[in-house]
Amino acid sequence: MSITSSSQLWLYDTTLRDGTQREGLSVSIEDKLRIAHRLDELGIPFIEGGWPGANPKDVQFFWQLQANPLKQAEIVPFCSTRRPHRQASDEPMLQAILAAGTRWVTIFGKSWDLHVTEGLKTNLDENLAMIHDTIEYLRSQGRRVIYDAEHWFDGYKQNPEYALKTIKTAATAGAEWLVLCDTNGGTLPHEITEIVTTVISQTSMTNPQIGIHTHNDSEMAVANALAAVMAGAKMVQGTINGYGERCGNANLCSLIPNLQLKLGYSCIGEHQLNQLTETSRFISEVVNLAPDEHAPFVGRSAFAHKGGIHVSAVERNPLTYEHIPPEKVGNNRRIVISEQSGLSNVLAHAKNLGMELDKHDPQAKQILQKMKQLESEGYQFEAAEASFALLMYEALGQRQKFFNVNGFHVHCDLGKGKETTNSLATIKVSVNNKNILEAAEGNGPVAALDAALRKALINFYPQIADFELTDYKVRILNGNTGTAAITRTLVESGNGQQRWNTIGVSTNILDASYQAVVEGLEYGLFLHFQAEKCCL
Amino acid sequence: MSITSSSQLWLYDTTLRDGTQREGLSVSIEDKLRIAHRLDELGIPFIEGGWPGANPKDVQFFWQLQANPLKQAEIVPFCSTRRPHRQASDEPMLQAILAAGTRWVTIFGKSWDLHVTEGLKTNLDENLAMIHDTIEYLRSQGRRVIYDAEHWFDGYKQNPEYALKTIKTAATAGAEWLVLCDTNGGTLPHEITEIVTTVISQTSMTNPQIGIHTHNDSEMAVANALAAVMAGAKMVQGTINGYGERCGNANLCSLIPNLQLKLGYSCIGEHQLNQLTETSRFISEVVNLAPDEHAPFVGRSAFAHKGGIHVSAVERNPLTYEHIPPEKVGNNRRIVISEQSGLSNVLAHAKNLGMELDKHDPQAKQILQKMKQLESEGYQFEAAEASFALLMYEALGQRQKFFNVNGFHVHCDLGKGKETTNSLATIKVSVNNKNILEAAEGNGPVAALDAALRKALINFYPQIADFELTDYKVRILNGNTGTAAITRTLVESGNGQQRWNTIGVSTNILDASYQAVVEGLEYGLFLHFQAEKCCL
Repeated sequence: MSITSSSQLWLYDTTLRDGTQREGLSVSIEDKLRIAHRLDELGIPFIEGGWPGANPKDVQFFWQLQANPLKQAEIVPFCSTRRPHRQASDEPMLQAILAAGTRWVTIFGKSWDLHVTEGLKTNLDENLAMIHDTIEYLRSQGRRVIYDAEHWFDGYKQNPEYALKTIKTAATAGAEWLVLCDTNGGTLPHEITEIVTTVISQTSMTNPQIGIHTHNDSEMAVANALAAVMAGAKMVQGTINGYGERCGNANLCSLIPNLQLKLGYSCIGEHQLNQLTETSRFISEVVNLAPDEHAPFVGRSAFAHKGGIHVSAVERNPLTYEHIPPEKVGNNRRIVISEQSGLSNVLAHAKNLGMELDKHDPQAKQILQKMKQLESEGYQFEAAEASFALLMYEALGQRQKFFNVNGFHVHCDLGKGKETTNSLATIKVSVNNKNILEAAEGNGPVAALDAALRKALINFYPQIADFELTDYKVRILNGNTGTAAITRTLVESGNGQQRWNTIGVSTNILDASYQAVVEGLEYGLFLHFQAEKCCL
Repeated sequence: MSITSSSQLWLYDTTLRDGTQREGLSVSIEDKLRIAHRLDELGIPFIEGGWPGANPKDVQFFWQLQANPLKQAEIVPFCSTRRPHRQASDEPMLQAILAAGTRWVTIFGKSWDLHVTEGLKTNLDENLAMIHDTIEYLRSQGRRVIYDAEHWFDGYKQNPEYALKTIKTAATAGAEWLVLCDTNGGTLPHEITEIVTTVISQTSMTNPQIGIHTHNDSEMAVANALAAVMAGAKMVQGTINGYGERCGNANLCSLIPNLQLKLGYSCIGEHQLNQLTETSRFISEVVNLAPDEHAPFVGRSAFAHKGGIHVSAVERNPLTYEHIPPEKVGNNRRIVISEQSGLSNVLAHAKNLGMELDKHDPQAKQILQKMKQLESEGYQFEAAEASFALLMYEALGQRQKFFNVNGFHVHCDLGKGKETTNSLATIKVSVNNKNILEAAEGNGPVAALDAALRKALINFYPQIADFELTDYKVRILNGNTGTAAITRTLVESGNGQQRWNTIGVSTNILDASYQAVVEGLEYGLFLHFQAEKCCL
């Protein structure tokens, strides 16, 4: 059934160029350097770094990369063909990509006659000359050239003869790769199959070889890239997490496992494929976008199981409920704590936490009831496993009270300009029946609260000096009720070795934040004393 | 090139059943009723409403729907086959779907031998008897039956002979549709084509007909459904926005336009296709999940254009940059205000707002500079067009100062339990050189602030009584700096006729909220007086 092939494919990542066209995504030079090195580690052979002719920041990026070069990947600058009726050698943007000092360059040109006459406002022959001259000039300067045929599929559908001429021109001028682009993302897989097959048979091209670059406007980017590969394309362009303009580019996080695990192509090493999930999350963190929890292969929910019967079945035989073993892509199976959870999920989760809990224990039912009640108020334990663990320990009578918070006040003086915003928090805490009243300031009410709480506790628990608040997220649950909305806060804390997540819910955003911060400290103390116990 | 066919397809929506398996999604009976009526308006012929045998809330849903029935759609309950070695007529869950009082029912059964022996722990013949008896019993009770062949493709790959037997059994027992399910979502399009073609040729089935149900674990759900339709399937199952367990189900918002606009199948009316974007957003609002802005066809970014040259080209000839006209699916073209914007984007946006601004005006450059500076601080005007308009009016010297805020204080007394949380805000405002000091309480600091501001302004501007805060969103920009993170707040306000969005950014969550709330009121007043001017 499956088509297997041991043949090699070349991946070409354009997260740093086409990916940054995504609305809401922006990156600094440092971000780009971190991402490039991470892609290098993943084993991507070609990494498109930017368009130095159009963006001065990209010039800096290529220079800085020279000081700290990649291990195995080719870093590639991107540029258009020369302008109509100019000399290639006089084009500042071509000088800019030469200055990037790379072995390979990518040049894009027009394939669609309409884009030549209406977009470039020149004639069809001049466009061919632009493609030819640009590539020939770059070859004369010692560069190897990848040619991106922009709007290829739309152009081919309108005027196949002219479209073919453009790539034949690129080949003649010395391009080593001809990449067929579905720039508008409107093509369907059966069309890709037909057109790529025709191109390969008509041009009988083995050198240059064919590549594919797809966009997701029809939700077909990954399927289209697979169709092209199965028709003979040898280079696949895409971005991590499918970032890109409009609906995004072909998602390498889905493409790589489909190509490698299902179709038997070789793209990256097995130990590199194991890093896929981590790479996806690393890059979403660097570009500061929330990861798509439902992303195929690498999403947090990709191998999550809900529902009692299903959970027991998947534990008996994972193959019957999972299309691939999650660890192959560095992801893991997860039993979901959710409103629809049955007792078996609670038990599975307790087991994960190393707790012994039997389905006949009355506490197991109590936990389920408490959980369902809290979930109806807006709590969601899927992303706050430390809070769920505290809830479980409480039900089992094993929750240690390290401290009690008996109240707090927050005062903010605002609105006079950002420099003068100031928040003051006072907190009343008791530890071992001793009352402490503390006050602290902060740039914002949550920072002030956190500071006051730590100040109150540090003499009793010096180890909290090592705890840090590593992430803080706020979600308005019923946004359409305006400022009276219920707020859910998620806090991630860490102690250098471990990280854990806690949750707070309230109509008051500060109260929700406070709950999550307090439980974060409590769970950190719990981990500390548990570790101490183990070492005795 | 394109395969066109005028033949009819039957859409089957399972948002209310399989869609609700999505992690983080939960719906009330009222939500389900609103969604069902909306899908009915969209022209979906089959709407799966739930599994009354497994979920008591779903029983209520079917009963309440009888009191307020759908206009054109068949509402369908879902259930498994009877348990091993039971009588179908004795199964409470089958009684529950009969009690739903529908014309059609959907029954799912096992196709994969391994699921029969390992999951159900029975033998292969008994599974066939379970399929047969269940369908025959429901037919005897006057129901028309859709048969979902669970794990069909995986089962067929392992044991094609047995898998075929299961659907032939369902057909013999009287099922009118045989729906082939890729339950684990691991199948690729070329396999779907091959297997569906084989099934249709081997069974030569025209009645019952074949349907397709796919999941997105390989990012192939939509491509797989298209492949099945092109191989002869006549029913397509999916969910709005692709909601579903793990990585989701086939996304009807992508499937419908692909099938109808690109492949020429007929699914829903043209005037209904125009409602697709609105339906997608309505349902994401009802289930309270942020819409995917990058979703194909219906996402806010699906037809968004960035970058100067590109923008002028798309305005000249949209067909060269858009795979379909956005209005066909009720979406629209959008020129993005972004960090990468050039002057031409600012001008295009000014034009949208009805402002006259020439590229040679020094103000146009000032606006661009101011915008870029604010964006580097964390502002993002893509989602806050009212704040951007105020920025433009300011640069043009046309921003009317309705009031000045000279400072505010917020005091919260918290931590004693949710009932007693209380916030007090005081605000100093001046209107026409008159100073006002006001105080107000609220359940949370933002509500208190909003109340104090309104109290201070209402005597001067009675029309603000009609303004309401319709949405409130908070995003932590650099979450990994913990509580010192920069907060971005988006506020949507409305006056009954119009809605507008404003933004605030600060390290203090209250300051960010305050900025957005204040600009929301200001823009509302601006709209009010602008409308009054026009009427003079």
